Amino acid sequence: MTAPLFNTLCVIGPGLIGSSVLRRLRAQPGLVSRLVIADRDPAVLDRVRCLNLGDEITDNLAKAVSGADCVMLCVPVGAIAPVARAIMPHLKSGAILTDVGSTRRSVVDALLPTLRDDIAYVPAHPMAGTEHSGPDAGLADLFEDRWCLLTPDANAPQDAIDRMSAFWRAMGARIRIMDIDHHDTICAMVSHLPHLIAFTICGTADTLAEDMRSEVLDFAASGFRDFTRIAASDPTMWRDIFLNNSDALLSVLDRFSQDAASMAKAIREGDEKTIVETISRGRRIRRSLLENRQA
Amino acid sequence: MTAPLFNTLCVIGPGLIGSSVLRRLRAQPGLVSRLVIADRDPAVLDRVRCLNLGDEITDNLAKAVSGADCVMLCVPVGAIAPVARAIMPHLKSGAILTDVGSTRRSVVDALLPTLRDDIAYVPAHPMAGTEHSGPDAGLADLFEDRWCLLTPDANAPQDAIDRMSAFWRAMGARIRIMDIDHHDTICAMVSHLPHLIAFTICGTADTLAEDMRSEVLDFAASGFRDFTRIAASDPTMWRDIFLNNSDALLSVLDRFSQDAASMAKAIREGDEKTIVETISRGRRIRRSLLENRQA
Repeated sequence: MTAPLFNTLCVIGPGLIGSSVLRRLRAQPGLVSRLVIADRDPAVLDRVRCLNLGDEITDNLAKAVSGADCVMLCVPVGAIAPVARAIMPHLKSGAILTDVGSTRRSVVDALLPTLRDDIAYVPAHPMAGTEHSGPDAGLADLFEDRWCLLTPDANAPQDAIDRMSAFWRAMGARIRIMDIDHHDTICAMVSHLPHLIAFTICGTADTLAEDMRSEVLDFAASGFRDFTRIAASDPTMWRDIFLNNSDALLSVLDRFSQDAASMAKAIREGDEKTIVETISRGRRIRRSLLENRQA
Repeated sequence: MTAPLFNTLCVIGPGLIGSSVLRRLRAQPGLVSRLVIADRDPAVLDRVRCLNLGDEITDNLAKAVSGADCVMLCVPVGAIAPVARAIMPHLKSGAILTDVGSTRRSVVDALLPTLRDDIAYVPAHPMAGTEHSGPDAGLADLFEDRWCLLTPDANAPQDAIDRMSAFWRAMGARIRIMDIDHHDTICAMVSHLPHLIAFTICGTADTLAEDMRSEVLDFAASGFRDFTRIAASDPTMWRDIFLNNSDALLSVLDRFSQDAASMAKAIREGDEKTIVETISRGRRIRRSLLENRQA
């Protein structure tokens, strides 16, 4: 048997992502010797206790992190830097600090000034999820064949980066190491903008007159149904993502709005060529996705 | 055994919808005694011949419709009125003319002036589909538990409306009879706008610089992936839908654009309350959908 990657891993905030990590680790004993779970919400702690996801379960963050070789923050993006600040004095010297946030620049800017020299900060963004949230929503195979984007701090030692890569590979993910601003632009396009649009279109439907709204619900064709699946995601998590990646997101939203206005113009003017070109582009992207085995 | 609903049904344009109807009829013999299929494309006729979907298969539209009690146009929306005009002189007196178009007002306005007094026009819009197209894409259970919206002409006899309702019920669908303009607004919201947005966002991704585009494809998270599924739909079909329902579509697109601009403003200004309200609305709509057993 090979040595464990970490003797003690501490997961703070065992929601969809955190509890999926924990489930996977429970299914692969030996990867991590001891699992510590911390959360400030007693209801969450009750659930992870019932689900038997950890060896130590506590609401005391300082105590939870004190013996950990790796501390993983699975809290909403807006809470990462505050929680990191709160636990910083209690971290074990040489520990790896990581998170699973969907945006980087604002988190890093808020966190770095408080980072201790003897702590390696190697954040990761596993690009996986469902519209569900909380410890009961986790899945052991959530990360299987999905990308995990690592954006290590410039001062993080290579050994820490290698260990986090090995960790996420063991979760089933494919690894890419990436610059943080590049990360934020890519994610604004492929994830944050689609979510913003899905939330918005559901709101648009909701403002239709009452009688029509019930019919909108009755007749929701597959198009709208797919959008509502995305739109069922957790409000706090997405509020934080939007606010923490606002520059990149507003920039791709602006591009999209211009493209939508061009499409409206083409429809108004009966410009068949532009309409067909736009639709065909969508098919091309779809084909590329299929070729990339992502669809 | 009960009498067949129609002695002879003629399907013109056996694509995804038409071939799904034919597959369902093959699985329920006795509903229609004789199936005639017509199309101008020899490749399509070859496929329906191989798939054994009809009793008579021809490229001669006039001959195909001459003995039919019901003629169902399963062509793109923009072709419905022209094809109806071409076959009108050859229809059997007392026959029902129907179609499966996704938009109504412009089709009805173009078709009605050529409608013969002895023909009942009872168009239907089965709200079902996949992103695939053509005779091979059909599914016998495509309409199971989905809505089919009937928008009968004011002069259509009740017996014709009843027979079309019975026909679509036999396809597995739930029936709603609806005013044509109301139909167009509802469909603009629940289907046409989501498709327009999906096509547009794929185009937006496509205009990103070449190196970033390949990464957009690599990292397409579930949000974007769902959008590309919708965007893989047939360009001709959707061009026709957009152009034939432009008023209702541009009106809901305008509402949506205003809502997206409000969301951008909220993000720019860090207005957490508005952001959370918009996201929560999406969840509410989703819950209503689940309660409606449509999700």
